[in-house]
Amino acid sequence: MQYKAGRKRVVIEGVTPEIDGGDFAIKRTVNETVIVEADVFTDGHDAVSAVLQYRKAGATTWDEVPMQPLGNDRWQGCFKVTEIGRYQYTLATWVDHFKSWRQALAKRTQLTDIVLQLQVGAQLIEAVAERADEEDAKRLREQAKILADKGDLHKRLTIALEDEIALLMDRYPDQQLVTRYDKNLSVIVERVRGRFSTWYEMFPRSCTLVSGQPGNFNTCEDRLPYIAAMGFDVLYLPPIHPIGHIHRKGKNNTLVAGAEDPGSPWAIGAEEGGHKKIHPQLGTFKDFQRFIAKAREYGIEVALDIAFQCAPDHPYVKAHPEWFRWRPDNTVQYAENPPKKYEDIYPFYFETDQWEPLWDELKSIFLFWIEQGIHIFRVDNPHTKPFPLWEWLIAEVKKVAPDTLFLAEAFTRPKVMHRLAKLGFSQSYNYFPWRNTKQELIAYFTELTQSESREYFRPNLWPNTPDILPEYLQFGGRPAFMIRLLLAATLGASYGIYGPAYELMENTPRDLGGEEYLDSEKYQLRHWNITRTDSLKDFIAQVNQIRKDNLALQSDWSLRFYPIDNDQMICYSKWTEDLSNIILVVINLDAHHTQSGWVELPLERLGLKENLPYQVHDLLSGTRYLWQGYRNYVELNPQIAPAYIFSVRRRVRTEHDFDYYL
Amino acid sequence: MQYKAGRKRVVIEGVTPEIDGGDFAIKRTVNETVIVEADVFTDGHDAVSAVLQYRKAGATTWDEVPMQPLGNDRWQGCFKVTEIGRYQYTLATWVDHFKSWRQALAKRTQLTDIVLQLQVGAQLIEAVAERADEEDAKRLREQAKILADKGDLHKRLTIALEDEIALLMDRYPDQQLVTRYDKNLSVIVERVRGRFSTWYEMFPRSCTLVSGQPGNFNTCEDRLPYIAAMGFDVLYLPPIHPIGHIHRKGKNNTLVAGAEDPGSPWAIGAEEGGHKKIHPQLGTFKDFQRFIAKAREYGIEVALDIAFQCAPDHPYVKAHPEWFRWRPDNTVQYAENPPKKYEDIYPFYFETDQWEPLWDELKSIFLFWIEQGIHIFRVDNPHTKPFPLWEWLIAEVKKVAPDTLFLAEAFTRPKVMHRLAKLGFSQSYNYFPWRNTKQELIAYFTELTQSESREYFRPNLWPNTPDILPEYLQFGGRPAFMIRLLLAATLGASYGIYGPAYELMENTPRDLGGEEYLDSEKYQLRHWNITRTDSLKDFIAQVNQIRKDNLALQSDWSLRFYPIDNDQMICYSKWTEDLSNIILVVINLDAHHTQSGWVELPLERLGLKENLPYQVHDLLSGTRYLWQGYRNYVELNPQIAPAYIFSVRRRVRTEHDFDYYL
Repeated sequence: MQYKAGRKRVVIEGVTPEIDGGDFAIKRTVNETVIVEADVFTDGHDAVSAVLQYRKAGATTWDEVPMQPLGNDRWQGCFKVTEIGRYQYTLATWVDHFKSWRQALAKRTQLTDIVLQLQVGAQLIEAVAERADEEDAKRLREQAKILADKGDLHKRLTIALEDEIALLMDRYPDQQLVTRYDKNLSVIVERVRGRFSTWYEMFPRSCTLVSGQPGNFNTCEDRLPYIAAMGFDVLYLPPIHPIGHIHRKGKNNTLVAGAEDPGSPWAIGAEEGGHKKIHPQLGTFKDFQRFIAKAREYGIEVALDIAFQCAPDHPYVKAHPEWFRWRPDNTVQYAENPPKKYEDIYPFYFETDQWEPLWDELKSIFLFWIEQGIHIFRVDNPHTKPFPLWEWLIAEVKKVAPDTLFLAEAFTRPKVMHRLAKLGFSQSYNYFPWRNTKQELIAYFTELTQSESREYFRPNLWPNTPDILPEYLQFGGRPAFMIRLLLAATLGASYGIYGPAYELMENTPRDLGGEEYLDSEKYQLRHWNITRTDSLKDFIAQVNQIRKDNLALQSDWSLRFYPIDNDQMICYSKWTEDLSNIILVVINLDAHHTQSGWVELPLERLGLKENLPYQVHDLLSGTRYLWQGYRNYVELNPQIAPAYIFSVRRRVRTEHDFDYYL
Repeated sequence: MQYKAGRKRVVIEGVTPEIDGGDFAIKRTVNETVIVEADVFTDGHDAVSAVLQYRKAGATTWDEVPMQPLGNDRWQGCFKVTEIGRYQYTLATWVDHFKSWRQALAKRTQLTDIVLQLQVGAQLIEAVAERADEEDAKRLREQAKILADKGDLHKRLTIALEDEIALLMDRYPDQQLVTRYDKNLSVIVERVRGRFSTWYEMFPRSCTLVSGQPGNFNTCEDRLPYIAAMGFDVLYLPPIHPIGHIHRKGKNNTLVAGAEDPGSPWAIGAEEGGHKKIHPQLGTFKDFQRFIAKAREYGIEVALDIAFQCAPDHPYVKAHPEWFRWRPDNTVQYAENPPKKYEDIYPFYFETDQWEPLWDELKSIFLFWIEQGIHIFRVDNPHTKPFPLWEWLIAEVKKVAPDTLFLAEAFTRPKVMHRLAKLGFSQSYNYFPWRNTKQELIAYFTELTQSESREYFRPNLWPNTPDILPEYLQFGGRPAFMIRLLLAATLGASYGIYGPAYELMENTPRDLGGEEYLDSEKYQLRHWNITRTDSLKDFIAQVNQIRKDNLALQSDWSLRFYPIDNDQMICYSKWTEDLSNIILVVINLDAHHTQSGWVELPLERLGLKENLPYQVHDLLSGTRYLWQGYRNYVELNPQIAPAYIFSVRRRVRTEHDFDYYL
């Protein structure tokens, strides 16, 4: 094997990004850049050249960009992805004898040596002319002739060292000696919303202005201006399908439902139908269509919840008993996600012999809703279904609708969550709800934004969900809700809240020490008074507007934390690559007391100068401060405002000696 | 693709050790252990089982050991390699329904539930009985029947939860559902000397007791008792072939040789022959045979230098002009390893069309010397020859002589050196000669012994070579030579010196600021007075004896550095896995002044107790100290002894209340 490639002298190693040896694609959104690096080196002391090759999957030819050496045998190249879909990239490299020759020539000092080298160069050029196209070959031969001739030495040296021949020579490396990287690595390119999105979760059935009366798609339509005013662009609905009656849950997750209890929307399926039907109380398909069209007018995209599981009275159970695992007593063990028990839900039996028809049916559920105009799915507990299913399903769905986005709701062990992201989920729930202290936040978000996992794992930050009312929110009052929203909205380019519980600061748990809401909407109708004067809706609107106005907050990789000499305060920045937009966030994590401290900034990295003042403009209060030097004082009273979201502006002096801040 | 494997629910990721996705083998020596880890997990909450499989390459069946969970979805298993050659290992894992069932059963509390579960278990067992061998099937069916029957519940539970069935069930996982790791990873197993070796380099032609008279294999034979007394087990000779006359180097690397100048042994080949001949002055093949046989009697293995390059008068140059790159003026550019120039040497032209016959010839050189009884080769500048050559060559040679060891003499950029190690070199020269300060030593040896590279890169530490007289030795006097030897001998399980220059503390450089020896043996005969009373030979003998007596010093991976509050002092330990041998080294790196400080030891890790004294026995001076607690005082005067090599012994109290130190 190696014998055959005995003259391919250049080695390619340590290619990044490359996930699990190329088994999985990295992710980008449209117009982002892919920076590829590799160790490239050969034996001995010859010069090497390397190119990065890339193409849209399916294309038969590669585009090519030269790679540049970074030192220590590391090389880098980059390309931009401009379309949704799959791209591929790989590398090629070779010993560049002409480059070696030029470098050697430039060092020669003895006349006989130089003349001999010019002859060697002429030979190299002649050899390349053999495989060049006609025009290039002609030019190469002309120049080779001059080099080998006994003409004006200065002229010959000039030709040898100028770029013209080098560029021609570069076009024709000896393919027999080129080392090609043996893998085509993949990039999944998604639309920008895959990276930057602002989610609002809402139970349609609670969406009403009158208490006790169930909401529907029409009342949801009326709620759209309210949601749009807060600045959300994805409206995610829990399952909208018929709800099972058998083992239906009662209020507060009790095992016996009253006659009026609506049941959990995740107990999908009843006599009216299953995953491809709408709960009659919510309206018709026509209502649904009108609702999502109206949402679109408000700049809001509706996302649906896909939960692969069935109430015991789901039509699948009778039609396809082979998709469930029956016990000797003709029952099915209900679903669990320990410590949670779903007595009202049957899990699918994915080890069934009939798994292929089952997979096809599950795929048809996605395709059905895509047909209805839904292109974002929040997938319920994907970690309790086989990994190969997701890899196949997401790829299959994207064949039909490449712009589809998938959010993985897997709150489980880290490696399982990472695997799901590798398999293709666009975004992932994560441990943010349980990262509260400065140390926890810095450690976790450094991992999320600076480690290799950022190539495939895009976090979507939720300070609450219908399942999670974190302790911090239970006891921190209004400042706690502001703080957690600020963290989510500025640490995460994608974040979401479950409302109106969030903006109305619902904070009573069902059990002390637990994270379940008391009187959770999962099991009963709730009426929310969204006009309450203490609502956080205006604050949320302001924060979301800041996100829209500042590109720096629309991606995650630039996140950097800075020292601040108070453990209750956290400070971090995000920037655009050209530093035209720099956002500096300072948050008091203590919901109860005023805290203050000295922030330390890396001025040079921020494009600032030690001896020039710069402006930090708090986009929340509108206040502008002039700071100078790397160390500055901050103080935050959580009862007034628990955070600064500074826009950092450097001073610019105009020709008229008039200063302003850019 | 994924579709087909849709029911293989368990994932295997992050397997270690695995070098470059399995492209390269890890290295071990006979009777070492391979510890394999992997992330193993499935969807949902079922239990999984995993086995590590291994075999000698060529075997058709795998041996198997169960893997154990370490937490966080990480699993571990290990196996021992007992023979020289190549081993393979891989993993298999599956959802273990029976294990899940037992775990669930153990949690059930309701009688009806338990009865139902026992029936479920009986079904699982019946299913496995279908694919079990006759005897096992019979037993499984018996037990299944009891579980499903309405007999004594206690008895049924006992059967269910005892290990007998579990062990039977473990033998027959459903192969359709087993996830097999898709790679067979490799281990190259070498003899123990690959890991633990003590080298002495010597120019045979200088090996004489009389000045001016060239040495030969007979005089080398006389020198063997001297070398053996110092405790070396590998005697490495620079090239022993005829030396070219054309462009022969004179004394101190001058370009014109005098009539008496013997030339550089690396300028291989003259009219008498090339790589398969012995320099007539050194003796005959018969002399050589007698010499290496005699060495063997002293426990010394002779290693040869293989340098793939030719003097201009090497017979290859005429016989195979196609193996060299001719310039338009019918000359060959001499070899270089910048900044070094070898005007007396032609490099091979590895891009020649005739590279295959060239490779075959190079291989035949190794096989020729193996035939002569040489099984250790020090390879000269392997980084100036193509990488594929080495991968092929080492594998080919090992097919003939699996116990052959190769030491790579590549002092070059780190990635190139690592690549050569991956390709199969048993040991590697490294940056030790230029790592002098505490910070440098800690950083470099932590990298060498604790990073992934230790799996394939075995350092061999040389405080000097004929090419390298480091500055530290030029100016530090006798203590410097002692310190660098101590570092090499205790940091490295393999180390070597170039003698007698080393034990005679030769320290004059050719040029100020350079590292070349004045009057280097590379270009002239030297006469060494090995009987000098200030020779370090007895000190070296003592250090090498300590290495032989202490298993801890015979491998590298256990190396740990400890704090000591003096930047001129370094402290580290090596141990055997069972802590039966713990060596603690303290060295004063300052060759000029007495230094002292407080050492801090991790008592628990060393098997010591805070409240019990322990003994540190200096194997150099014989002195024993009683230490207690984690912090102890040390002081070293380099003029007396620049180091302690402590054997650490914990106190044992016998039944007769008599204390001793183990």
